Amino acid sequence: MDIRKALFLCLLFTGLLSCTQSSENSANENNLIIREQGSFAVGGTVKENPGTFNTITRGPEGQTYHGDHAYVFYQIPADARQYPLVMWHGFGQFSKTWETTPDGREGFQTLFLRRRFPVYVIDQPRRGNAGRSMAEGTFTPTPDEAFWFNTFRVGEWPVFFPGVQFSKDPEALNQYFRQMVPDIGPIDIAVNVDAVSALFDKIGEGILVTHSHSGGMGWLTAVENDNIKAIVSYEPGSGFLFPEGEVPAPIENSAGALVATGIPMEDFMKLTKIPIIIYYGDFIPETPDPNPGTDGWRARLEMARLWRDAVNKHGGDVTVVHLPEIGIKGNTHFPFSDLNNVKIAGLMSEWLNEKGLDK
Amino acid sequence: MDIRKALFLCLLFTGLLSCTQSSENSANENNLIIREQGSFAVGGTVKENPGTFNTITRGPEGQTYHGDHAYVFYQIPADARQYPLVMWHGFGQFSKTWETTPDGREGFQTLFLRRRFPVYVIDQPRRGNAGRSMAEGTFTPTPDEAFWFNTFRVGEWPVFFPGVQFSKDPEALNQYFRQMVPDIGPIDIAVNVDAVSALFDKIGEGILVTHSHSGGMGWLTAVENDNIKAIVSYEPGSGFLFPEGEVPAPIENSAGALVATGIPMEDFMKLTKIPIIIYYGDFIPETPDPNPGTDGWRARLEMARLWRDAVNKHGGDVTVVHLPEIGIKGNTHFPFSDLNNVKIAGLMSEWLNEKGLDK
Repeated sequence: MDIRKALFLCLLFTGLLSCTQSSENSANENNLIIREQGSFAVGGTVKENPGTFNTITRGPEGQTYHGDHAYVFYQIPADARQYPLVMWHGFGQFSKTWETTPDGREGFQTLFLRRRFPVYVIDQPRRGNAGRSMAEGTFTPTPDEAFWFNTFRVGEWPVFFPGVQFSKDPEALNQYFRQMVPDIGPIDIAVNVDAVSALFDKIGEGILVTHSHSGGMGWLTAVENDNIKAIVSYEPGSGFLFPEGEVPAPIENSAGALVATGIPMEDFMKLTKIPIIIYYGDFIPETPDPNPGTDGWRARLEMARLWRDAVNKHGGDVTVVHLPEIGIKGNTHFPFSDLNNVKIAGLMSEWLNEKGLDK
Repeated sequence: MDIRKALFLCLLFTGLLSCTQSSENSANENNLIIREQGSFAVGGTVKENPGTFNTITRGPEGQTYHGDHAYVFYQIPADARQYPLVMWHGFGQFSKTWETTPDGREGFQTLFLRRRFPVYVIDQPRRGNAGRSMAEGTFTPTPDEAFWFNTFRVGEWPVFFPGVQFSKDPEALNQYFRQMVPDIGPIDIAVNVDAVSALFDKIGEGILVTHSHSGGMGWLTAVENDNIKAIVSYEPGSGFLFPEGEVPAPIENSAGALVATGIPMEDFMKLTKIPIIIYYGDFIPETPDPNPGTDGWRARLEMARLWRDAVNKHGGDVTVVHLPEIGIKGNTHFPFSDLNNVKIAGLMSEWLNEKGLDK
């Protein structure tokens, strides 16, 4: 690091107390050095009522409405690496997924800033800070957290899985449940893909990091936009894309059948042009299990392996890492915010390095 | 700054190229030096369905629901000043209010980080990233942007006010309209005040910065929580609190009557214990005007002055600054993100300094 180099030289040549003071304060190596940060909306559509707006009566005539954009918060560190990381949340989640962990530690947003990557976190259209939806919606607060506790494989409600990488402090679970937000109107895959593609049009080449529901949308976005140079996908849930005619049979599981999608070969081939890595955590049964919370993931992991084989057969570079198989135990559906998330970040860093994506 | 001091000494004693390289990169004085950043939910309530959750059938029984918290994103700079700034958005807005301006420059979030204040930006309960509401809601996308263009005093739709401090680049207006989000369920003042008060319980003493609708909620929060050491309020819109028996008559205006609120004297007196400054921008008519977009602000400015007089009569320290009166022209309802927002930030800095709040 340049600061450390400067301070080393400063100490070497001067030995002054002020150097060490500086090192302990603003030049502390634990500080984040941010060159630029901010937020913006990207993508979306506009509708306009016919007629002319009347200043006094303020009726609907002639008024416009902008919606269905994504909201993006970004930070660019000093001495930034070439490719930014674009982090896209999963179902029911928003950018918080990548921010502070439920137990209050740094999430991938800040961990990867420390690793000198520009980081963009998204709220997809109709979600969180991108709530200005083009579609009507209704919302009813419905107790559903035991469902999510099980589906996110924290445990079997209300009991934590043994060895799970999740804090037993009740405040962690409080934060975890509060990091969900509703959809405003229906989820529209095409709207989401268009907005994230617009983001890559704006920022240029980068690396897409997806989670769960954004996994499938991420493949579609990479088909649409050549600026996506690689994908890191944590526990993609659905929407695996196969060439038409090579779509595998649905995989039955106790949460329902997991169905793959067929797309034209020409589109599919775009997924063979970029390196892709997929990670799955622990507590996924090896054989059919009556608990749909875990059994759904058995099907998804199996489908991910079929997909890997299909892409690689056509010349692609897809890796599936089932974390327990490499000795990393206890991860939930959110490996990037689990207690061992620094180790998980390390795996991602190593892979990006192997692929020459961290220059 | 310590880094600059270290580099100065480094240059002085060594004259090495590496010092100047460092200065241009990570030690660049334009960089933000962040000691810590993150996000969390604060406040809120929990409900729980009776019964026992069934892992297989996953019905409603025994499930919980956490909602009505605020969402907070915070950054603490190196060498931080004592009091953090807590920035609370207005009606229809979220934390974006304080982030990048519609025309792409730094907003108050980053400007005040540069001035070494810890900065907390809020999404109030049922808004934006705090969308997990305890109340039912429906949403219909309704073209309303001419209404907001006028009410926020950017101009008289579609014409900008002459000399308005707002970019004429169409992309600025695009970003401006997209920085709105709907409420999920009704706005509940008590829920909002409780959540922001819980934030001050968590972080300790600090300064509350409000805008428009959060102005009135800010007074209520200061009545509830002694950790609020000062309030900076941009264009407070409603909810001015007077002692019962001293409530002024409603102020008629072409947007409707502006009604003040009476509270017990004991509560009111808490507002006399902290310094408070209020700013209003330009384009506010001096006499009744048929345009409700601007005339509502005539009433609010008048009420703010009555309120200042009431608080100060009881020993308080409230200042109302109507920006055009001190020669600062062209500001909209969003002075902190207008084209001259660095000057507006300067006024706030000076006031905090005068009051000894920037140590």
